[in-house]
Amino acid sequence: MTAAGLPMTVREPGLPDRVRIHEVGPRDGLQNEKTVVPLEVKAEFVHRLAAAGLGTIEATSFVHPRWVPQLADAEQLMPLLADVDARLPVLVPNERGLERALALGVREIAVFGSATESFAKANLNRTVEESLEMFAPVVARAKDAGLRVRGYLSMCFGDPWEGPVPVPQVVGVSRRLLELGCDELSLGDTIGVATPGHVGALLGALRAAGVPAAALAVHFHDTYGQALANTLAALRHGVTTVDASAGGLGGCPYAKSATGNLATEDLVWMLDGLGIATGVDLGLLTATSVWMADRLGRPSPSRTVRALSRQET
Amino acid sequence: MTAAGLPMTVREPGLPDRVRIHEVGPRDGLQNEKTVVPLEVKAEFVHRLAAAGLGTIEATSFVHPRWVPQLADAEQLMPLLADVDARLPVLVPNERGLERALALGVREIAVFGSATESFAKANLNRTVEESLEMFAPVVARAKDAGLRVRGYLSMCFGDPWEGPVPVPQVVGVSRRLLELGCDELSLGDTIGVATPGHVGALLGALRAAGVPAAALAVHFHDTYGQALANTLAALRHGVTTVDASAGGLGGCPYAKSATGNLATEDLVWMLDGLGIATGVDLGLLTATSVWMADRLGRPSPSRTVRALSRQET
Repeated sequence: MTAAGLPMTVREPGLPDRVRIHEVGPRDGLQNEKTVVPLEVKAEFVHRLAAAGLGTIEATSFVHPRWVPQLADAEQLMPLLADVDARLPVLVPNERGLERALALGVREIAVFGSATESFAKANLNRTVEESLEMFAPVVARAKDAGLRVRGYLSMCFGDPWEGPVPVPQVVGVSRRLLELGCDELSLGDTIGVATPGHVGALLGALRAAGVPAAALAVHFHDTYGQALANTLAALRHGVTTVDASAGGLGGCPYAKSATGNLATEDLVWMLDGLGIATGVDLGLLTATSVWMADRLGRPSPSRTVRALSRQET
Repeated sequence: MTAAGLPMTVREPGLPDRVRIHEVGPRDGLQNEKTVVPLEVKAEFVHRLAAAGLGTIEATSFVHPRWVPQLADAEQLMPLLADVDARLPVLVPNERGLERALALGVREIAVFGSATESFAKANLNRTVEESLEMFAPVVARAKDAGLRVRGYLSMCFGDPWEGPVPVPQVVGVSRRLLELGCDELSLGDTIGVATPGHVGALLGALRAAGVPAAALAVHFHDTYGQALANTLAALRHGVTTVDASAGGLGGCPYAKSATGNLATEDLVWMLDGLGIATGVDLGLLTATSVWMADRLGRPSPSRTVRALSRQET
């Protein structure tokens, strides 16, 4: 799978046996791409990710096409994924989006909230409270229809306008999202500023507030190179669901708007080395990211993809 | 120092209060640069690093100029650093190199060994045993002269020819280097394949063999994005000396020969966030790496340098 039997597998006490990777490349990874990716490329991307062993692949978004033109083909994409053997959640911003998703037989959705007022205003044009009120009927309707619901919570560590985000504030909004009926909460370090002690403090406070680690996922960005160290900290605190984006798609590292999702390959390298099962074949996944990088016309920002694809040439 | 009071400082139990960063940019970072960096740029680089608070800066190498033409100006550089308020170790390959260093009043040296036969052969054209025999009189003479001696040990985790490197083999060579009289041993993941459990296993085995963590440094490469997670694992095992290279210099991430030193800025971001003192001013350090990137004509591979320099423009 990797050159010369590497990484060597050495377990570390206190870490889980298995991690579920929530692959966000097709949605979070592609949504800010300026050039529209052809429908058939998106469909092949999801098929390849599933073939590489990813069991949860966030496929697209039912946000209004005006806001995310790249994912305006959600209605066309979902039928092309009918044969994919993986969970395929989709992002849904409101009741209208949910209706569109339900009409296509979607089984899992995600809503996208904010821990800070500034980002709620910038991203949703609402207060945090108003955004929760917007989500309430969406989550209720989805649960009635038997869907699984994920709640994203962005700006859980730092906010570009507000600076450090107090832990109790994040815990408060987290509890509200779970009380609405979300099955899982993905804690987002949207601007990538978190460090391992901060991660531990938030996870400890959530546990103290009665939120089990099993209900949590972590979503780290590599803007300052901290994503994998933060992931390690989260695993020590019992988290077993980790968001990542194949090839590190999502936010060009050279652009002002860079977000820099944690690359799935860098994550899998670490988990393979730690002997933590993911079901992912790193070679197939890397080949997928190299293929996608060719489609997008620029190299993958994932260090593992670069290192492994150099070895193969 | 960093935008908007970030990273937020949150201590993590079980980690040290202070870390000494062994800055390797001027030596390890520059040694493979194809275009010769002017002497005055090298001198200014070291001065700037010291002004940013780095207390240990590996300045150059007294390897034969034929092997490392970039550092052929070691004799000219050292007098220009006489006023630098920092420890300035230099790499010394053999007795001839030591004589050159002693003549310039150097107070600290480092020798460069290998944990594997393949790399000893490739890098030193000797067996591991023969290389230890070569170092013995160098270390003895240096200690007699009152110098501090660091031993680098490369390929401590994986080797490009041999694959995974057995922990007992690394422990064996480590002990030999310390028995020669080295004051400190820097454990190198030269090809960047290590993962945190492997790091913990090696450090635990060294402790069991009687090597105190205080005698150890870690030298991680970011080839697969693992360097910072591995550093976190090493800190948990009591290591308090960490090698890093300003701006991530040393090994272009696009070249086959890429090594990808851990960027000092990415390390300082994590340590600042963890409340671990380093004495380093991240703003001054980032400005230094941006300045050096301009001299070298390409952007820094450090994610923190990229993120912070974007904010400043």
